[in-house]
Amino acid sequence: MKKRILSGIQPSGKAHLGNLIGAIENWVKLQDEYDCYFFIADLHALTTGYEKPKKLKEDIEELTIDLLAAGLDPEKCTIFKQSDIAEHSELHLLFSMITPLPWLERVPTYKSKINELKEKDLSTYGFLGYPVLQAADILIYKADFVPVGEDQLPHIELTREIARRFNYFYGETFVLPKDLLTSVPVLPGIDGRKMSKSYGNTIALSDSKDEIIKKVNQMITDPARVKKEDNGHPDVCTVFSYHKVFNKEKISAIEKECKAASRGCVACKKEFVELLLAYLAPIQARRAEIIKQKSIIKILDSGCGKARVIAAKTLNEAKLAMGL
Amino acid sequence: MKKRILSGIQPSGKAHLGNLIGAIENWVKLQDEYDCYFFIADLHALTTGYEKPKKLKEDIEELTIDLLAAGLDPEKCTIFKQSDIAEHSELHLLFSMITPLPWLERVPTYKSKINELKEKDLSTYGFLGYPVLQAADILIYKADFVPVGEDQLPHIELTREIARRFNYFYGETFVLPKDLLTSVPVLPGIDGRKMSKSYGNTIALSDSKDEIIKKVNQMITDPARVKKEDNGHPDVCTVFSYHKVFNKEKISAIEKECKAASRGCVACKKEFVELLLAYLAPIQARRAEIIKQKSIIKILDSGCGKARVIAAKTLNEAKLAMGL
Repeated sequence: MKKRILSGIQPSGKAHLGNLIGAIENWVKLQDEYDCYFFIADLHALTTGYEKPKKLKEDIEELTIDLLAAGLDPEKCTIFKQSDIAEHSELHLLFSMITPLPWLERVPTYKSKINELKEKDLSTYGFLGYPVLQAADILIYKADFVPVGEDQLPHIELTREIARRFNYFYGETFVLPKDLLTSVPVLPGIDGRKMSKSYGNTIALSDSKDEIIKKVNQMITDPARVKKEDNGHPDVCTVFSYHKVFNKEKISAIEKECKAASRGCVACKKEFVELLLAYLAPIQARRAEIIKQKSIIKILDSGCGKARVIAAKTLNEAKLAMGL
Repeated sequence: MKKRILSGIQPSGKAHLGNLIGAIENWVKLQDEYDCYFFIADLHALTTGYEKPKKLKEDIEELTIDLLAAGLDPEKCTIFKQSDIAEHSELHLLFSMITPLPWLERVPTYKSKINELKEKDLSTYGFLGYPVLQAADILIYKADFVPVGEDQLPHIELTREIARRFNYFYGETFVLPKDLLTSVPVLPGIDGRKMSKSYGNTIALSDSKDEIIKKVNQMITDPARVKKEDNGHPDVCTVFSYHKVFNKEKISAIEKECKAASRGCVACKKEFVELLLAYLAPIQARRAEIIKQKSIIKILDSGCGKARVIAAKTLNEAKLAMGL
C-alpha cells in the first residue's frame, strides 16, 4: 500500500513561480509515488488575512486552477478545500485542550512572522494556534509523510509532540508523521528579496507574455556592474538564480561569461525570459482549458468526499478515546 | 415568536444541589417562556478536565439524567451535547482568527481559575480559548438571551465584542446576545466553602437518604456556638443558608430562635434534612424512571437534530461572509 502524504498551500491569489518551484512541482512528482492529500489551506489563510476576506473566494478558485494547470491530477491525488472538512476544526479544538501555551509561544516562526508582517495585527488567538491547526490537518489523515522545507521542521516536530501527548493521555490513536525534507530551489522575487505577494515582487503563472517580459526586465542584477565591461558577480544576481533553475545545463558557462564580462545583462535576461515563456506555455494552455471546463467546484467536491471519509473515521476514534 | 435562550452546563459527574438551585431550577422555569437550547458542555469540560477523560462519557449520561429528573422537558426545550454539533468547533476556529489575545488574557476568570485549580496544568491553548468557544456556543444559535450570574458578565461582554468585531469585518451576521442576569441563591458545600465537586463537599441529587442525612450531620454550623445555650450566629451557619432556600416561610423565626439559643443545631439540622428529603423525593423518583426507560441517547440525538439545523445555517452565513 502506498504511504500517505499530506500537504497544504494557502490561497493568496494566483500562484507564482516561487510557489510552483518551491512546492507545487514537488507535489506533481509525489502524486505518482504516494497516496497524496493536497489541500487549499483557506482556514490558515485567515490566520494572517482575516481582515480581507472578500478576496478569499476568488483566491481559492485561482489557486485551484493553478494547481491543476501545474500538473496535479485529481485522478491520482486528492485535492480539497480545508474549510469543507469540519473535522479539521473539530480536531483542532480537541488538540487545543492538550497543547501547552509555551509550546506555541516557542515556535520559531511565531515571533519572526509577527515581525515580518508588522503592518498586520497578528496578536490573535488564531495566529498563535496556527501550529495546532496544522497538527490537526496532518494527523486527521494519519499521514506518513509531510513534505517540508527546513524552516518548517519545528512545525512537524510540534505535530509529533501533540500526537505523542494525545496518545499518552488517551491511548494510541495517531500515527507520528515523518518529514519528507525536500530541498527545493528558493526563487527570489524580481527585486531580489524572497518572492512573496506581500512584497509585490512575484511572477504569476498566469501573467501575460508582456507582463513577464516587463518583470524580467525590471529584475535586479549585479548592482556593482555599471557597464557591460565590468566583471559581474552572479552570486548576487537575481537573474542568475533563475538560470540555476531554468537553465541548469548552461549554468557553469553563464557563470564564467558573467564573471568575465563576456555576457551582458540584457542578453542574459533575454535568454532567460524565452526559457521561462517556453516553460510556462503548456501550463498556461492547461489553465485556459481548465477555466473553459468550469470543473473546479466538481473537483474540489469530489476531493472533499474522499478526504472526509478518512477525516471522519479518525475524528471518531479521537472523540471515543477522549470519552466524548 | 418566543425569544431564544442558550445555556450550557459542564458534565462533572452527578449534578449536585448547587447545580440544581444555581442553574437547573432556573432553566426549568425558562423553558416555559422561551425557545430554550440547553447543552451538555462536554468540550468545555475538557478545558480543565483533559487529563481524566475516561469519566467523561459516564458524567455526560449522569448529568443528562439529572437534568431530566429536575424537570427539563424535551418537548419544551432542546437538550443536546455540545460535541455532537461540529459547527461549534468550526465557528470557534473562525472566531479564533479575529479574537485578540489580550481580550482573552484579560478575562477576570482566566487567572483566578488558574489559581483556584493549582493542581491542574491549565496553561493550555484550549483553556485560554474557553471564552472563544463560549462565544461560538452562544452566537451560533443567535441567542437573544443568556442566563448568567454576575461573575459571568465579562464572558457575555466578550461574546458581544467578538460578534461586533465579526460584524464589523464581514458584515452584519450575528445577533448581540443580552445577559439575563439571574440572582440565584448560592448554596455552600457541607464544609461552608463553595459547593464544588473538586472540594468533595457536595450533596448530589442522586445521593441516598442515608448519605444525605450523614452529610447534613457533617455540616458546619456556627463554630463559636459550643453549647446549645450559646447564642448562635446564623449568618455564618451553613445550615441556615440552606434554610433560606428550602424553608423560606420560617426563615425569620429560625433566625430569631438561633440567635436566642432557643433552637439547637441538632434539631435545626433534623428539620432541614426532612425538608430536603421531601424536596428531592420526586426528583429521585423521576431519576429512577428515566434510568429504566433508557431514553437518554434518543433524547440527546433528537436535541442534536434540532440544534444542528440552526447551527448549520448560521455557520454557513458566517463562512460565506468570510469568503470561504
